[in-house]
Amino acid sequence: MSYVLNDPADFADEAAAGFVAAHRGLVRRVPGGVARATATPSGQVAVVIGGGSGHYPAFAGLVGPGLAHAAVMGNVFASPSAQQVYSAAKAVATDAGVLLSYGNYAGDVLNFDQAEARLNAEGIPCRTVRVTDDIYSALPDEREKRRGIAGDLAVFRAAAWAAEQGFDLDAVHAVAARANERTRSFGVAFTGCTLPGAKEPLFTVPVGQMGVGMGIHGEPGIDVRPLPTAKELGALFVDALLDERPADISAAQGARVGVILNGLGAVKSEELFVVYATVAQLLEDGGVIAVEPEVGEYATSFEMAGVSLTLFWLDEELERAWSAPAYTPAYRKGTRDLTGIAAGDEVTDELDADIPVASAGSVAAAETVCAVIDAIRDVIDREAEELGRLDAVAGDGDHGIGMQRGARAAAEAARKAGSAGAGAGTVLSLAGDAWAHRAGGTSGALWGAGLRAAGEQIGDQDRPDAVIIARAMDAARAIVQGNGKAQVGDKTLVDALVPFVDSLGDAVSSGLPLADAWAAAAGEAEKAADATASLVPRMGRARPHVEKSIGTPDPGAVSFALAMTAASAVLAR
Amino acid sequence: MSYVLNDPADFADEAAAGFVAAHRGLVRRVPGGVARATATPSGQVAVVIGGGSGHYPAFAGLVGPGLAHAAVMGNVFASPSAQQVYSAAKAVATDAGVLLSYGNYAGDVLNFDQAEARLNAEGIPCRTVRVTDDIYSALPDEREKRRGIAGDLAVFRAAAWAAEQGFDLDAVHAVAARANERTRSFGVAFTGCTLPGAKEPLFTVPVGQMGVGMGIHGEPGIDVRPLPTAKELGALFVDALLDERPADISAAQGARVGVILNGLGAVKSEELFVVYATVAQLLEDGGVIAVEPEVGEYATSFEMAGVSLTLFWLDEELERAWSAPAYTPAYRKGTRDLTGIAAGDEVTDELDADIPVASAGSVAAAETVCAVIDAIRDVIDREAEELGRLDAVAGDGDHGIGMQRGARAAAEAARKAGSAGAGAGTVLSLAGDAWAHRAGGTSGALWGAGLRAAGEQIGDQDRPDAVIIARAMDAARAIVQGNGKAQVGDKTLVDALVPFVDSLGDAVSSGLPLADAWAAAAGEAEKAADATASLVPRMGRARPHVEKSIGTPDPGAVSFALAMTAASAVLAR
Repeated sequence: MSYVLNDPADFADEAAAGFVAAHRGLVRRVPGGVARATATPSGQVAVVIGGGSGHYPAFAGLVGPGLAHAAVMGNVFASPSAQQVYSAAKAVATDAGVLLSYGNYAGDVLNFDQAEARLNAEGIPCRTVRVTDDIYSALPDEREKRRGIAGDLAVFRAAAWAAEQGFDLDAVHAVAARANERTRSFGVAFTGCTLPGAKEPLFTVPVGQMGVGMGIHGEPGIDVRPLPTAKELGALFVDALLDERPADISAAQGARVGVILNGLGAVKSEELFVVYATVAQLLEDGGVIAVEPEVGEYATSFEMAGVSLTLFWLDEELERAWSAPAYTPAYRKGTRDLTGIAAGDEVTDELDADIPVASAGSVAAAETVCAVIDAIRDVIDREAEELGRLDAVAGDGDHGIGMQRGARAAAEAARKAGSAGAGAGTVLSLAGDAWAHRAGGTSGALWGAGLRAAGEQIGDQDRPDAVIIARAMDAARAIVQGNGKAQVGDKTLVDALVPFVDSLGDAVSSGLPLADAWAAAAGEAEKAADATASLVPRMGRARPHVEKSIGTPDPGAVSFALAMTAASAVLAR
Repeated sequence: MSYVLNDPADFADEAAAGFVAAHRGLVRRVPGGVARATATPSGQVAVVIGGGSGHYPAFAGLVGPGLAHAAVMGNVFASPSAQQVYSAAKAVATDAGVLLSYGNYAGDVLNFDQAEARLNAEGIPCRTVRVTDDIYSALPDEREKRRGIAGDLAVFRAAAWAAEQGFDLDAVHAVAARANERTRSFGVAFTGCTLPGAKEPLFTVPVGQMGVGMGIHGEPGIDVRPLPTAKELGALFVDALLDERPADISAAQGARVGVILNGLGAVKSEELFVVYATVAQLLEDGGVIAVEPEVGEYATSFEMAGVSLTLFWLDEELERAWSAPAYTPAYRKGTRDLTGIAAGDEVTDELDADIPVASAGSVAAAETVCAVIDAIRDVIDREAEELGRLDAVAGDGDHGIGMQRGARAAAEAARKAGSAGAGAGTVLSLAGDAWAHRAGGTSGALWGAGLRAAGEQIGDQDRPDAVIIARAMDAARAIVQGNGKAQVGDKTLVDALVPFVDSLGDAVSSGLPLADAWAAAAGEAEKAADATASLVPRMGRARPHVEKSIGTPDPGAVSFALAMTAASAVLAR
């Protein structure tokens, strides 16, 4: 749905007014739409694009050098009128004529064709290339009936490049038509969208399902299937598009393609990047070279959740077009001179570690340390979702994932250090570094610092006994409290950590063996974690909803108690 | 919610991998995050930004010339670890040192401060500017406690500009700190967001309400109020931010401000432009000059629906920074040389019309034509929402708004032509042109062409009688069928138009007066429109859901019948 609007009937006009106000100096109003702020150079074919509003940056955002000379702006999801097309074209036309290009939809065809006829009748040469990239909107033997979606960008770029080379109208038409023949897109939808001011969505997709091949106005696709993973979606896209490569490309191997991974509105940048990671890999596996990929929003439908992948099968000329500089409100590339600046180094993301020489006793104990951290990782893996749920009550909901990343990285680092012959102290310290490094956030920093402090206390020479271990846990407590600035009663990890350390110290002093002392301390930690349900948390970035959290235990205290109990089971073996 | 992901624990890493794959040549991986592809020039302070993932383009999208040298990338909504900050900074640092800049959140402060200390300890000079632009996160006398939101961009731009000028670390720090002192933001939220893989939203906002001052992780604001219109929201933003201008700006009059209207994720570009139209006007009314405004997504929170406005109160130096060229994955400006190209003309969006001389009888009849079109406008205004609802069943839901825009424009054009002394034919023709022009789309084109055809048939000489009018309506029918290619039975406007024209012709031939003949014909149109409920529509762009529409009448036929019945009431007067 739309959240901010005035009278829905004014939406498209007000959006156009705000768009022009935001991009003064780049675009100007002309009858029917917007044009480049600069006049079309004499003798240059003007490329005029357009369609309904609601698909930003298509179409107004794509006006400027390297792209269109003008965009005709229809009402929301409605083709512009013939009068609008005619007027906008006339505002930018030179004697060299006008190329119209737009997605192939009935209303657009009706109105653009009328305008084309009128322009030609008035002596302004005009030709049209309709974009037909959506492979699931008609069968391959009826390609001319297909709809146009995000592949628009490839065709518009080709037309603009040809126009800016000074080609005549027929030559511009030929380049744009060839670009269209070599552009294929495949889209999926997860939800529909709601027009501004409407009470009901225009169309919907069943929850948890995906419309395969669904169009950007909800046109039906070929199938409805359960939501895929990002990897499955990337594979679905790439397989289908490699299969439907243009007839003149005998094998995909070695082919160069422009790539557009387009979000329809509600699928956000990070998700698109997750999908692109798979797409890039699969194209590479298929021997296809991705040229200057575009990942983002190029043709949207308000808040529709959907993604499309476009492959633009390049030849030498089309690659020049695809790579050419452009400068529009929403599409800018290749205009920065970076020559003469040295390239930086690619650096890998490994923590270096020197492994100090350790005693045999400490190396033996390191094996137990590894087993303890493995057990912590396992319990956190199991409880990650619940921890996230607890954290979402008052915090930012990332505690489960953060702990999971930290514990996994710590277990891996511990095993690696152990294999390299590290002693118990170094294993713990490096596990802590890995935890902090991979988990990030406040709890990651505190767990990392705590494990490192414990590791440094234990060292690599002695076989650690119960007294050393109790002292190590107290060192961990000291650094966690020092860095995190929390006291008992603040509803944090500290509420479970302090009773654990106190209980462990008392039990060890009274002569209990480590396994029993630890088990008792873990029991105290569990009780203390449960008791945090009655506390009011400290305010902070991670605690936006302080008032809501009464009755819910603190996820940091809970995860600490879970970890200590899991460790207890290992020590009891 | 997220729609496409793999294991939620891998989300941030996979997003980073896809991001780098999509932007090879601009950015490279370094430990802890990403850096410019190019090495930091010798002697240049490196600007290192960062924070949690989930806020794209903050922070990785803002790495490149004119912005950061590196971005540290934490896990989803979690601060990066101190190790990450340290590593990323080290990868780009020169002897000139490092400026750290990031939004002021507890976890970030903890980790960035640790990294700063470590860098300084190793002899790499390092200083920090925390961004504190969110005016409703702490009172004015505690500005240093405020959170950082979209104003990040202003501070980062200032720091980068100063670094690229070759300023030393203290001078870069001074410019960035001054930028932060002069940057104020105000955000509102309409919905919460859901972390990748989570079952429940991290936070919510009551439906139909707005969290005023709410933070980008759901931190509470100062108030919850009903959803405003776009105009009200723009006024709320501008009033509050002009009130909180920096102390050294005695009056806003004449001040120059950088402007960022930021969408949090679900508020789409067109909506932002609608809000910006008001913001631009109110700033102008307040005598404030908006310099190179940015309208789009600069700091997001997944699919959170929210908007923030930032004012960056410029001085001469800060304006140079704000206007400087930049070239990053997500932020590019000012790098295109447009000198030597002539500016195009601003052209207004009026249809020109010559008013032919008309007979007194035709001028008198024109008054009736105007009254008929007014009546059509009124009934369409009244039924627009219902027409939209009908259209959403099988079509793209824009029929109500399209008819409303068309009829309003037609009525206005008719009155304008009437006042200029136009005859009945010209009034109808110009009303038709205005209808097609303002409504756009298929139905706009057909109504426009039909009214023009009827007008040309009626002409401006005769006082139109029943026979002429019946002939005019037949001319309208002919052009609508010719252009729209629909037959009776296709479930379109034609299903009501043809029976209307046939009935009108028969009644007029049988000698009935116009008012009675028209009333009978309108009755036929209503019956025919109702009967379209049993038909299966033609497929087309506007008809994605053919199968769903059985049982619902065609909105084009319904609106035609409504219009004819409304006209009938005028003719009966």
